[in-house]
Amino acid sequence: MPTVTITRLARFSAAHRLHNPAFTDEDNRRIFGKCNSPNYHGHNYTLEVTIAGEPDAGTGYVMDFGDLDRVVDRSCIDDLDHKNLDLDVSWLTGTRSTAENIVVACWRRLEPALKEHKARLAHLRLWETENNYVEYDGN
Amino acid sequence: MPTVTITRLARFSAAHRLHNPAFTDEDNRRIFGKCNSPNYHGHNYTLEVTIAGEPDAGTGYVMDFGDLDRVVDRSCIDDLDHKNLDLDVSWLTGTRSTAENIVVACWRRLEPALKEHKARLAHLRLWETENNYVEYDGN
Amino acid sequence: MPTVTITRLARFSAAHRLHNPAFTDEDNRRIFGKCNSPNYHGHNYTLEVTIAGEPDAGTGYVMDFGDLDRVVDRSCIDDLDHKNLDLDVSWLTGTRSTAENIVVACWRRLEPALKEHKARLAHLRLWETENNYVEYDGN
Amino acid sequence: MPTVTITRLARFSAAHRLHNPAFTDEDNRRIFGKCNSPNYHGHNYTLEVTIAGEPDAGTGYVMDFGDLDRVVDRSCIDDLDHKNLDLDVSWLTGTRSTAENIVVACWRRLEPALKEHKARLAHLRLWETENNYVEYDGN
Amino acid sequence: MPTVTITRLARFSAAHRLHNPAFTDEDNRRIFGKCNSPNYHGHNYTLEVTIAGEPDAGTGYVMDFGDLDRVVDRSCIDDLDHKNLDLDVSWLTGTRSTAENIVVACWRRLEPALKEHKARLAHLRLWETENNYVEYDGN
Amino acid sequence: MPTVTITRLARFSAAHRLHNPAFTDEDNRRIFGKCNSPNYHGHNYTLEVTIAGEPDAGTGYVMDFGDLDRVVDRSCIDDLDHKNLDLDVSWLTGTRSTAENIVVACWRRLEPALKEHKARLAHLRLWETENNYVEYDGN
Repeated sequence: MPTVTITRLARFSAAHRLHNPAFTDEDNRRIFGKCNSPNYHGHNYTLEVTIAGEPDAGTGYVMDFGDLDRVVDRSCIDDLDHKNLDLDVSWLTGTRSTAENIVVACWRRLEPALKEHKARLAHLRLWETENNYVEYDGN
Repeated sequence: MPTVTITRLARFSAAHRLHNPAFTDEDNRRIFGKCNSPNYHGHNYTLEVTIAGEPDAGTGYVMDFGDLDRVVDRSCIDDLDHKNLDLDVSWLTGTRSTAENIVVACWRRLEPALKEHKARLAHLRLWETENNYVEYDGN
Repeated sequence: MPTVTITRLARFSAAHRLHNPAFTDEDNRRIFGKCNSPNYHGHNYTLEVTIAGEPDAGTGYVMDFGDLDRVVDRSCIDDLDHKNLDLDVSWLTGTRSTAENIVVACWRRLEPALKEHKARLAHLRLWETENNYVEYDGN
Repeated sequence: MPTVTITRLARFSAAHRLHNPAFTDEDNRRIFGKCNSPNYHGHNYTLEVTIAGEPDAGTGYVMDFGDLDRVVDRSCIDDLDHKNLDLDVSWLTGTRSTAENIVVACWRRLEPALKEHKARLAHLRLWETENNYVEYDGN
Repeated sequence: MPTVTITRLARFSAAHRLHNPAFTDEDNRRIFGKCNSPNYHGHNYTLEVTIAGEPDAGTGYVMDFGDLDRVVDRSCIDDLDHKNLDLDVSWLTGTRSTAENIVVACWRRLEPALKEHKARLAHLRLWETENNYVEYDGN
Repeated sequence: MPTVTITRLARFSAAHRLHNPAFTDEDNRRIFGKCNSPNYHGHNYTLEVTIAGEPDAGTGYVMDFGDLDRVVDRSCIDDLDHKNLDLDVSWLTGTRSTAENIVVACWRRLEPALKEHKARLAHLRLWETENNYVEYDGN
């Protein structure tokens, strides 16, 4: 039986700021540049969620896209969309809200939630702007 | 002599919130929905700036793109990029930071700045997400 | 008061076939080429709906995007999405389902529906593939 | 010698319907939702075909793109473009025309056809809409 | 009868250099910057060709896209694609190959060629990079 | 500690020609087709540079994007942008300027330059047009 991956794109718009309270203000400005701007800035993010599995003989689906949407929304998007990543998202507080840290945090929420649906998360890609993205596969 | 328009795309990432202090909190939530989220959210915006004119016989340019970039950056992008539109941008305060109000405010800054370079602003388009944009032509 | 346009992109996936029963089969094949394929083919369409108006002093909106979405869905998208344009859409039957005819038919449904919300439809653009689109402004 | 992959994007527009005659009508509607719409719907598909190999010392090519286009057209696109995937494509009948099943079927046609040209198929990605795609690498 | 516009996107890849022999070398470098690089550079251009007319009652077409493609290819794309705009294109020599001058030159070739097919050219847009485009409507 | 990849997109516009002086003129035309056009043609290229590493505990970064930009610019883009790949780029001369050869040559410059910044280059993707790209991961 062939193993196929399916990928769904989910989008959210959020505010954030890169700042580490353990650094001096000068270091924060030097290290994070414009991303340290005190009153936040924001992005339209796109999250690509990839599931691996064998297509079901009856449906031809690896996973129903409606079910996948619901898991992605409940685990991640509902908490992130039109929110402040540093102030509003309990599972991101205490870290820098870099794309790197967001994508790992999303994996840690999505992977067990998908396993409950017998789906295997294989890959995440997170676009922050049209010129940069990060990826994580659980390792 | 032919009249040609030239258009440059400029991008900025910013945080904002839609909220009118003259409304009740309940009305703000009902009218602005997710965009009223208290700690801000954000977008990657794209501004399309269109200039109209006759190509110069010697250069073939309506306007040098480098000059256009400098005017757009100084008049708008430097103030907007990686900023909070409601707290950091003096020329937007006192209005709702809707795409409609932003595009009109950009026109009012760009039009006279371009006139100093003998360039005629013809059209602005502002994308807020990949699914919506606003346009203004000075009327 | 400035007049601004706002544009919303709506998407639908549909099947169709170009065929005129008044033509011979040979003429249908010659005129419509691959688009005359008997068992239908299909597209992911994108409809850009543009409204013109003055931003409201209190909300900064020309029209609430949620209201606009509802009108566009009820007038057009609910009837078109995941449907056969030639068999399932009562307001397209009897015409060729070319992009030209679809965009005019959408205008005739959207224009009065938006007028009930005191919104003025200014422009429609319909993408059929990434290489062609049609436009209509009611004239 | 370095191993490089080259990828070509090919596009086709097709109609299809998701329906399993072994299921009840009610189950078909519940499982496939809008995709079970009886008179078909359709999409603009994009197929990304990836070949792996060493660039030729004389030409600098892994494979001539013209040759690759011809193989992809003859093996897949000519049969799929402006067609009904459920009624017109012999090598898809008897399966559900999900993106998962289409991508596996394309692999089984492309892999041997490319081998005749001494080219090694490495990866396929099939976009169904701008929000979802599937991938297969032969395993 | 409604007037609809139809737009076709055509693409070409070409080399060019901005240089005016009437200027000093220093002025050429100052005015044209990187675009004055002596051995040429190049772009993937996209030309959007817009025709205005009434959809035919029998076909639903303003103009057959196949016919439009042929006119655009013969008038413009065949001469421009995979060519050097300054050395290979007789109808561009003697001007600076700015996007402004290219779009006007394309209009002057396309407008009469389309008139022979009873089609009315309404608008041209030419993208030079993903961040800038020019437009011309014959005035 | 999780391993995350970060990817930056860099763009350059360049002229080139595919031609092997060891082949006859007839063979060059047959093998390279339009790409053998004698006076060069050109493209807008996009290079996706992927770095792998663990996000830093203090900054949340795998690598600062500003540092990455500087390395990519100095190693590759400054030499390629608005240049003739066959005449102006010393590290490409003597090879065919196919996308395959460009991506391998970029790897050989980027990999050691990034290592000096303790960054590990993981993957390169080079788009030549919107319909084809090549990839290389150092093997």
